[in-house]
Amino acid sequence: MNFPKGYRCCGFNCGIKKESADLAIVVSDVPATAAAVYTTNLFQAAPLQVTKAHLDAGHTAQAIVINSGVANAAMGKQGLNDAEAVAKALAAHFDIAESSTIVASTGVIGMPLPVDKITAGIAGADAHLKPLAENADATAQAIMTTDTVSKQAAASVVIGGKTVHFWGMCKGAGMIHPNMSTMLGFVLSDAAIDAELLQQALSAAIGDSFNMISVDGDTSTNDMVTVLANGLAENPVIVDDGSQAFADFQAALKDICIQLAKKIVSDGEGATKLFEVQVANAPSTNDAKIIARAVTSSSLVKAAMYGRDANWGRIACAAGYSGAAFKPETMDIFIGDIQVAKDGQGLAFDEEAALALLSEHDILVKIDLHDGDGAAVAWGCDLTHDYVSINADYRS
Amino acid sequence: MNFPKGYRCCGFNCGIKKESADLAIVVSDVPATAAAVYTTNLFQAAPLQVTKAHLDAGHTAQAIVINSGVANAAMGKQGLNDAEAVAKALAAHFDIAESSTIVASTGVIGMPLPVDKITAGIAGADAHLKPLAENADATAQAIMTTDTVSKQAAASVVIGGKTVHFWGMCKGAGMIHPNMSTMLGFVLSDAAIDAELLQQALSAAIGDSFNMISVDGDTSTNDMVTVLANGLAENPVIVDDGSQAFADFQAALKDICIQLAKKIVSDGEGATKLFEVQVANAPSTNDAKIIARAVTSSSLVKAAMYGRDANWGRIACAAGYSGAAFKPETMDIFIGDIQVAKDGQGLAFDEEAALALLSEHDILVKIDLHDGDGAAVAWGCDLTHDYVSINADYRS
Repeated sequence: MNFPKGYRCCGFNCGIKKESADLAIVVSDVPATAAAVYTTNLFQAAPLQVTKAHLDAGHTAQAIVINSGVANAAMGKQGLNDAEAVAKALAAHFDIAESSTIVASTGVIGMPLPVDKITAGIAGADAHLKPLAENADATAQAIMTTDTVSKQAAASVVIGGKTVHFWGMCKGAGMIHPNMSTMLGFVLSDAAIDAELLQQALSAAIGDSFNMISVDGDTSTNDMVTVLANGLAENPVIVDDGSQAFADFQAALKDICIQLAKKIVSDGEGATKLFEVQVANAPSTNDAKIIARAVTSSSLVKAAMYGRDANWGRIACAAGYSGAAFKPETMDIFIGDIQVAKDGQGLAFDEEAALALLSEHDILVKIDLHDGDGAAVAWGCDLTHDYVSINADYRS
Repeated sequence: MNFPKGYRCCGFNCGIKKESADLAIVVSDVPATAAAVYTTNLFQAAPLQVTKAHLDAGHTAQAIVINSGVANAAMGKQGLNDAEAVAKALAAHFDIAESSTIVASTGVIGMPLPVDKITAGIAGADAHLKPLAENADATAQAIMTTDTVSKQAAASVVIGGKTVHFWGMCKGAGMIHPNMSTMLGFVLSDAAIDAELLQQALSAAIGDSFNMISVDGDTSTNDMVTVLANGLAENPVIVDDGSQAFADFQAALKDICIQLAKKIVSDGEGATKLFEVQVANAPSTNDAKIIARAVTSSSLVKAAMYGRDANWGRIACAAGYSGAAFKPETMDIFIGDIQVAKDGQGLAFDEEAALALLSEHDILVKIDLHDGDGAAVAWGCDLTHDYVSINADYRS
């Protein structure tokens, strides 16, 4: 993995959790252009409000602090004060403007943030900080909650003769759903790019990645994806959204976001399978997205995936109630390359072959509507006994 | 239970299922005014299309046939032919107009309807038909699929000095969600009422009952609720939607629909609990409904109910992403009479007392938004290990 230049980071235990790492810090050697996308939930957690105020002010960031264990959500004025105290401590420690800090929290809702532990952690961070290449794993591990594995991805692209690198980490297992659910994503890049174009590229990338995954349909109060671009790759600054350079940057950012999003679904609470739903030839891109998301969000489809059941009726049914406009009578459905429905009706198919495909970890469902040229892809995981166990016991 | 006058019915095995009853027939002694509400799924099963054509033609019905085991959904032209063949056989047997028949099917999607077995069943129905009071149980049992218990309810009201009776049966366990999900409901009444008012009363009753329940968020292709009113109670015909008689009729019909809807949620696939979500003082009735449904539909809230976890954060979170407009900072949440959140923030509360309330079968959640006078009630069931087991194995 080639890492973007000029980032140091660390992940360690600051005492919120019993033993495992619960505090991650990322610092750029120089101020970076920054952009973010936030949850659409009406309850927006305090750290998001603080981060948003900072980035809106300058579109620049140089340090990120993320704690796991406590979400600092639904804590009212105290939550805001706490998030600001953490941002202040981070700014003071690295001698940067408070508006250059990004703060994030993930964990239990409705409990006070242990500010003292976090600020003490920040004060002792220098002992832990190392170049990204050395500490990426430890950092990605520190932001985990119910995640069973840490999640990282990388991408690179040549822009103006310079190789631009991306590295990203994310967390999120349950509550993953379109519109930025309990999910945190942090992408670091050494690209040089205008702030407005960075936001534009991130918003577009999110629309095709994090917003197209679903674990259980619930969306959370704390979700946020941020991207930093510190310019140390020394490419000519990307300033034109019609340029090839921007298109290449956009493609690489989307690539890394899709990689990260798929890792989240694969690690969905209790999940044993990742299934991809490709919708083709829909009346519009929006209809295709609505259908793809309805199928990946359907509890019945998800339970059928767990049961390795080629139950195309549930797929058709979810598309039918999705709210998208399409002609049911021209819908074809495939599991892998096996066609299971044609013109909205079931086909006789090789059940053994379908069972074999459905026994894999990665499953592909294709829906061809023959009713336009809209297309979309979404990813979901199966609904399992373990999902119920995890979520029936989370708080206790 | 006092039954409406003038109905005979039966439920027996016609050979679709191995042993249990799979065919139900209901006949009114005289033609009845009829109304219905149908699924909003784009895939509308053949029997619904046939029934809708019949009722649209005359708003009158005299006989109903329902088979369980095969849904006759997503079967294209053949499905329509099959549903029409069943309607024809029913009309011929009882010597009534084909447009006076209602046909319904529930079960597996995408399999051909066994028309011969059903028409043979209809031909032999006279041996089974008995007055409603004697055969209500057998009839309600014949429409079950994954239901674990049969579902009936009754209501009565005095109109113009005459007691009008209602009896209803329904089925539906999984896929129960707002907008008429896999759910069949049949209400019989001996009231005399104008056809247009009957439709108006049914649509309003459904909006506060069947459309406010959720098992898993999936909506099906076959859902339908019908009501027959044969006039044999001899009340003065209800013709004025501003009259007390109509208000009384409306209230009784809503009452029986809520009774039936709650029985469906209580018997949700794998469910062990029924929870009622009351939303008060919302900006509008519609906002209240959206919030109540989002909370009852949330997988995380449902899993928390299973785990007896007073996780008010998940309740607030579901309200927050519901799409309804409200002020998070004035939201109060109660579990039973225990206040767990005030002004959008958690309160310290008696966890033991909350656990005791959450250990009951029936759980009440109250959300007070202090932000208007809209109110709504919705019902949900918990998400359990058994739900996953049932739906991972349904087809195999």
